[in-house]
Order: sequence, then structure tokens, then C-alpha cells
Amino acid sequence: MGQKSTIRTHRGDDFSGWYQEVIRAAELAEPSPVRGCMVIRPYGYSIWENIQLVLDAEFKKLGVQNAYFPLLIPLSFLEQEAKHVEGFAKECAVVTHHRLEYAPGQERGRLIPKGRLEEPLVIRPTSETIVGWALSRWVSSYRDLPIKINQWTNVMRWEMRTRMFLRTSEFLWQEGHTAFATEQEAREDASQMIALYDSFLEHFLAIPAIVGEKTPGERFPGAESTYAIETLMQDGKALQAGTSHFLGTNFSKSSGITFLDDKGREQYAWTTSWGVSTRLIGAIIMSHGDDDGIILPPRIAPLHVMILPIFRDDNDRGCILNFATEIERRISSLSYNGKPITAAVDRREHLRGGDKFWQAVKKGIPLRVEVGVREVDFKTVALSRRDASARERSTYSIEAFLENLPNILDEMQHNMLARARARLEASVQPVTSKEEFVAYFKDAAAGLASCYLSVDNEGEIADLLSELKVSARCMPLSEDGEGRCIFTGKATGRKTIFGKAY
Amino acid sequence: MGQKSTIRTHRGDDFSGWYQEVIRAAELAEPSPVRGCMVIRPYGYSIWENIQLVLDAEFKKLGVQNAYFPLLIPLSFLEQEAKHVEGFAKECAVVTHHRLEYAPGQERGRLIPKGRLEEPLVIRPTSETIVGWALSRWVSSYRDLPIKINQWTNVMRWEMRTRMFLRTSEFLWQEGHTAFATEQEAREDASQMIALYDSFLEHFLAIPAIVGEKTPGERFPGAESTYAIETLMQDGKALQAGTSHFLGTNFSKSSGITFLDDKGREQYAWTTSWGVSTRLIGAIIMSHGDDDGIILPPRIAPLHVMILPIFRDDNDRGCILNFATEIERRISSLSYNGKPITAAVDRREHLRGGDKFWQAVKKGIPLRVEVGVREVDFKTVALSRRDASARERSTYSIEAFLENLPNILDEMQHNMLARARARLEASVQPVTSKEEFVAYFKDAAAGLASCYLSVDNEGEIADLLSELKVSARCMPLSEDGEGRCIFTGKATGRKTIFGKAY
Repeated sequence: MGQKSTIRTHRGDDFSGWYQEVIRAAELAEPSPVRGCMVIRPYGYSIWENIQLVLDAEFKKLGVQNAYFPLLIPLSFLEQEAKHVEGFAKECAVVTHHRLEYAPGQERGRLIPKGRLEEPLVIRPTSETIVGWALSRWVSSYRDLPIKINQWTNVMRWEMRTRMFLRTSEFLWQEGHTAFATEQEAREDASQMIALYDSFLEHFLAIPAIVGEKTPGERFPGAESTYAIETLMQDGKALQAGTSHFLGTNFSKSSGITFLDDKGREQYAWTTSWGVSTRLIGAIIMSHGDDDGIILPPRIAPLHVMILPIFRDDNDRGCILNFATEIERRISSLSYNGKPITAAVDRREHLRGGDKFWQAVKKGIPLRVEVGVREVDFKTVALSRRDASARERSTYSIEAFLENLPNILDEMQHNMLARARARLEASVQPVTSKEEFVAYFKDAAAGLASCYLSVDNEGEIADLLSELKVSARCMPLSEDGEGRCIFTGKATGRKTIFGKAY
Repeated sequence: MGQKSTIRTHRGDDFSGWYQEVIRAAELAEPSPVRGCMVIRPYGYSIWENIQLVLDAEFKKLGVQNAYFPLLIPLSFLEQEAKHVEGFAKECAVVTHHRLEYAPGQERGRLIPKGRLEEPLVIRPTSETIVGWALSRWVSSYRDLPIKINQWTNVMRWEMRTRMFLRTSEFLWQEGHTAFATEQEAREDASQMIALYDSFLEHFLAIPAIVGEKTPGERFPGAESTYAIETLMQDGKALQAGTSHFLGTNFSKSSGITFLDDKGREQYAWTTSWGVSTRLIGAIIMSHGDDDGIILPPRIAPLHVMILPIFRDDNDRGCILNFATEIERRISSLSYNGKPITAAVDRREHLRGGDKFWQAVKKGIPLRVEVGVREVDFKTVALSRRDASARERSTYSIEAFLENLPNILDEMQHNMLARARARLEASVQPVTSKEEFVAYFKDAAAGLASCYLSVDNEGEIADLLSELKVSARCMPLSEDGEGRCIFTGKATGRKTIFGKAY
């Protein structure tokens, strides 16, 4: 079947090198000439569009409305919330001028910044402060609450070490912002949104997650509680894939979001915020990819079936292309998971069959259908699934193939989830003493450790974690029981998951 | 019917004051604390979402793919295209630092910018240069062409005088960027896209436009030809509502977008770019609004029918609400223009019927349905159309109302277009001499003048235009015939439309 995939790096040898190569081979994205910023190419962007489509509909079912807030934040806004500014001031893009002029005496030389702003502005690293300003104007009575707002937008954090999709200076995300009259409603909202993200990852991206609360030191700057979904990549490292924050009245107080309750008393509103980003595309790649490239879960794949016509000589061309086109047409009338199944015929004439085959593999298209003279004669297709070895094929009669197509996609979707779940479960190691903890993270290639913990990890054990290059990922919401803290020996009911993380 | 609308300003007295007031009354947007930037509120944003939905599908039918390019542009990119930099350098936000620190000795004082960048970056005013960089990498053979890319995003131009939706420092738009192997294909693309915008405005926004080419001085910086749709607002001023640029090989040359043609010769690609922005929302307001507020064309309205329960006393409440809910449910199963008709019941208890009525009016919701005891008894509804006087009502039996609802919406859509078209046609004044030209723009409140012109208006007549505060809007594509230039008396086949403009 022609030349092998051009992914030269094996996952096991150099996971990070493999990751970068896979992204380029699938034409998902590429680094840009702007430090730490990427170009998201059409194929990568279409995955993001599918993610948006599902989540946006889910948000709207919950009464969330989209809106748009300014890109630029005045410094005075950042300064309002002390923890917030500490969290974001160190890495942000600062706008200081509003004009460019040619350097003196140079008509066509270098441009230099002119028109200094009285107050510099920061490109939003997140929008709690500017949304808080707006909410303080929109809310005056308990009747104005709850308010649930979301925006799909770009944000900027000046990261020093960047990696495409995982950590870039600019990235795309959605940020939800809500305000409630009561603490309970706000807490419920924060919990509901992290559960929604978890369910989305499981059902659409085939990625199982550990849902938990962040330890105090890992909280969002300004939050009372941060909930996260922690996922496991194939190299054993954890990836935080989404967060939801219960902000208490911290931002209400700094922004002045007050309302009169039903007894006429002035109260501070309770707020939350929550978000997921284009990082999810990185999670898909590192959860499911193999040595031939990415593998896209059918429920999020922009294209489900690539039909590859295989020509022996020019005489076959016409009838094979007709046959392929007919299959494409018939697939397009089918649906899977409530949406049309998408198919395309790779009609390019200047590429050999083997090259087309490997391009479809590298792009992670769930199913490949090869049709040649034999298939035309027998009215069959040769089907390969992207979650199986690239050279494995099954022959179906056309009718059986079309009838089974939704099931085949569903089987693949579930198979991908099952594999990822088995890997997650196998990688969580219960650890019962400090010595075990140290040994685990010194020896193991990588993985997660689950242990009872009574101390604040940011205090007493900070040095140890830093030495081991490990962090507290979360305190799982599902964990029960009681045990002894691995550091203090004190009885506690709270488990914490540790791991190396992206 | 309760208190009158709270739009205090009449269009005829102070169009600009009316415009600002209408935007706030409908909760479309509001100014932000960041100079020249606005907050787009959920209701305003939902109009933008509807615009996106239609246009995005149209673009995709033409083979356009969405992607995402970095927000920040290096100065060296802007410098590449001489005219481009002249057009944008005077009004742009410049990022010069990547960190904030507290001023020395001030733990909690003012933050100051730190971490100066080696090369300052500009927040994109438009993306030709960075897209050009990417295209130069993606294109190497004629087989890679055409490429048609679009992004939905924010851009920033540091405007001195801003007005919500029409001219803000930051705005949302879509920018399409294409590259072709031949000049003809690129010219056809630029024409096709301006025709698509024109058709969208006419069929969805009920706004007729004059489609034309910009005079040389009004071209996009770096374009060979700029096509525009010019629309007429109710105050007689022109609003440029969308543009499409044939860029020739200007950006290919500055960005190095070359390819080998089918004979192996290196060639420059021919590129175009085209865009519409949130300015379209301003166009809707100023084309259709009346002294009671905005009027939304049914095909773009987020909500088609507001159902207003009218209570006389508490005993009626239950049966009236049931009746209203039943109407809402039945409307939701109907469709208009290929999409579900949307209805809502205003169930708020703390507002009086009159207040709800005027809120629906101010929000420009196409239809209002009032239901009280009488309607429940007779199984009727009292219907008011937003394009008629607020106090006009028709009574329909429920069945007749539901059966006719799609037609009523369609009638309103066409009525709005017909009104706007009549206004446009009445306002274009043929002008045959310089004296007439001067008199027209000195005397008339405002309007458009159509005249034969053989001179380059940016040269010889620049002072006159500047004195009259008038600009060349476009050279209509539809104009034919021949006449004498109003300035030189020379015979010419080209008409130009002049007007005062936003």
C-alpha cells in the first residue's frame, strides 16, 4: 500500500517530538512568526468548530447567552482583585501606544511606536474583571439574577515555553461567567459545568477524566474553589482539560456587583466562571494518536469516511470513480449520533494511491474505504478502521456496509473510550507512604499517584513536589473512604491525585 | 397600553442621539471603560450569531474553509507592503511589553509595564500580511490553488471618533482571504463575494445596496480594485456595509506567495480579501428603526413572536398563561425561511403589561401577540406587527394566525425591503453640473448624487469634496450609458455616486 506514513518519530522514543510531527502531518496547525502564537489550519479549525457546535448548544440549553466583551483590559481593572493580578501580571501582553511612525529621517525605514497611552492596557488573559464591570451595571435587583453569559474568543498569556494547542501565548477558548443571588446556586453552577465538560469529553472526545477540586495552591487566582477535569495522556502525564471556578463574592466585591434582595437588602452576587480551550485538540492527539498519526473520535471528526479509488490502469478509471461517487452519495444520506455522516472521494489525479492512503491515515479520518476493479465487480468495499492497524481490512458488500456504517462508527467511538479508560485506570497508583510516593515518581516513567493527604501541599511538601517535578492534580469528587495522610499519618477523608503535568 | 416608549429622541431631530438611545433601549450594546471599545450584550450578539450562521454556510458552499491566524502582527510584516502600512500605521494598538510589575517600593500600588519586546507587535487591523505569510508556505504548485480561507474574529483600529457598531476601536468581523493561479479567477472571486454580500443584505437584512467599485483614493490600502456595497441610512448618509478587494499580486509579492504552474514556471498567486463586520447591526438599526426603536427583519431576528399575557385580575392568570403557553408551543413547530419560528411568553410578574409591551417594541421583535380573557374565550389573538404603528392590532382566530404566520413574517420582511428600496431610489439625485453638485450638497439635508465623472476625485476635486464634507462612495457596476463629466465636460462612460458618509 505504498510508502509508510511519514511520522518518523515513535511515541515511545520521543513523545514530544512525535506530538509536533503529528500536528504538522495532519495539517492541524503550525507555529507562526509571532512568538508562541500558532496558525490553526482549516483541518484543525474544523475540529474546533465541531467542539463549539456541541458545547454551544449545551450551554444554551442551560440558559447561557453569548455576548462579547472588550479585548483590552485597563490596568486599574486587573489591580482590583489582589490574587487575580498576582496570577496574571507576570505573563501578559501590554499595549502602550496607539500609533506607528517612521523613525525620524527614514521615509521607508523601521516603524516605531508613537502616541503613548495614558493608561496602558492588557490583552485579556481572562475576562472576570471586565465582565464584572458589566455585571455591576446590569444587576440591581434579585429579579435580574441569575445571569449566565459566555463568550467564544481569543485570550493571551505570555507563556515562556509554548507547545501547540497545549500552551500558546494566544489561544481560543470559551469563558462562561455567571452571577447568582445565592451561594448555593453558584456552587451548583460550578459543579454542573465541570460535570458538563466531563460528559462532553467522555461522550464526544472519548476521553475519560478524573473530576476533582484543585488544592488551594492550584486554584484559579481569585477563586474560592476550582474544579477541574484531569485527563491522562499516553506518556503518563496529566493534562488539565477544563476548569470551573466558584468565585464566591470575591469578584462581586472588587467589581461592585450588588443587588437588592426580595426584602430590599443590598447583597453581593455570587459568581462563577468556567472554560475549555483549543487545548482539547491537544488532548485528542495525545490520548488517541498512534505511531501513524492522530485518530479522531467519530463524534468529533470533520470527515467520517475517506473513499480511495484504486486504479490499475486508465480503462478502470471511469467506472471506479462512478462507483466511489455513488458510495459517497449514499453515505451522505445516513446519520450517526444525530448528524449526517460525511464522506469524500479523494479524486486527486497527481497522487498515487499509497500516498492518498497514508494522508487519510495521518489525518485520523475514522474510516477508509478502498474501491478498485474488484470492488466494482463484486459490489463490495474494502474497509479499514483508523483505530485498527493501518493494514487491516474487512470486505463488506455495499448494502451491508451502508447498513452497518452507523454501528461501525459507534463501535469505534466506544472502543477508543474503552482503551483510554483502561489506560487511565491502570495508571492511577494508590500510594500509602511518603517513601512509596518518592519511589513512584523517581522510578516510574510517569503516571498518577492517589494518596490520602491532610497537609496543604503548597506549604510543607512544596520542595519535595518541586524536586520530583510533580504537582497535585486534584482531589477527586468521587473518592470516599478514609485513610492516613502519607506525610503526617493523620486520619483524613480526602484523597489527592498527584502527577507530572502539561 | 401603558407608558410610551422611552426613546425620547426623535429621528428627525437628532439622528445620532436617537441611534445611541435605541441601542441602549434594546440592550444591544454599551460603551465600555476601554476607550472606543463596546460590550456587545446578549441580544445584540444574538443578531450577530444569526448573521454568522447564514454567511458561514454560504461561504462553505463556495469551498471556503475557516481557520485562525495570530492576533499580533510583527511590525516587519506591516512594513512589507508600502500602501498597506500607510493605511493602517496611524491607528493601531501597539504591544511593547510582556509583563507587569508593581512600581518600585509599592507592594500594592500601580502596575507598570516591564519586559520590553525586541520587536513591537501590532494588534491586527486586518490580516493580509500574516495570512500571506501562511499562504506562502502552503502554496507551492498550481495544484495547491485555489485556497479560500476565512476567519471570524476581532480586529483593532485605533479610531479617534467612535460610534457603537459603526466605528469602534475593536470590532468583530469575518475576513476572507483567497489565492488563485490566474488573474481572472481572482477577479471573479472578488466580484462573486461582493454579490454575495449584496444578496445577503437584500434577502436577510432587507437592506438594498448600490454595488460598485471604489474610486482609487477610497481603495483598501494595497488593493488593485475595491468593490463595496453602499447602503443609505434614514438620515440620508451613506454607509459602506461590506467590501471585497482584488489585490492583484501586491500581497503575493510582499509575502512571497509563488507557485509552479503546469509548465513548471514560477508565478505569483493572485489574491483577494473580503469582509463584513458588526457594523451590519448599525446598518439594520439606521435603515429600519423608527421613533419607538429598532425594527428587526424577520429573517435575522433572534425572536419572531413575543406573546404578552394581559391580566385583569388574579383569577384569569392561570387560564391566560396556559393559553399563551399553548400558542408558544404551537408556533415553535412552524418554520419560516427554512428555520423554526421562535416565540416566547413574557411571564415576568413584576412588570405591568404596558411595560412589557414597550420593551418588545423597543427590542424590535417582529410580532407581538397579546392574549387576555377575551382572547381565551374566543380563541383569538390580538396581533401587532413591528413595521406598523405600535397601536395597530389585528384580531385572528388561533388557527388562522398559525396558518398565516409564515406569510405574515414574509410580508413584513418584504415590506421592510420595499420601504428601504423606495428610500434609496428616491435619494439618488442625478447631477449634471458642478454648480448643481455644490448646491445639492450645500442645501439638501443629505442624499446621494449620481454624476458622470472623468477626473480622479482624489486629485483635482479633493478640496471641494472636503469643503462639502462629501466623498465618492462608488462607481456603480450597474450603471451604463455615457455622459459628460460634471467637472471637465469630457465624455465618459463611468458614473460615480457621491454622498456624506459614516
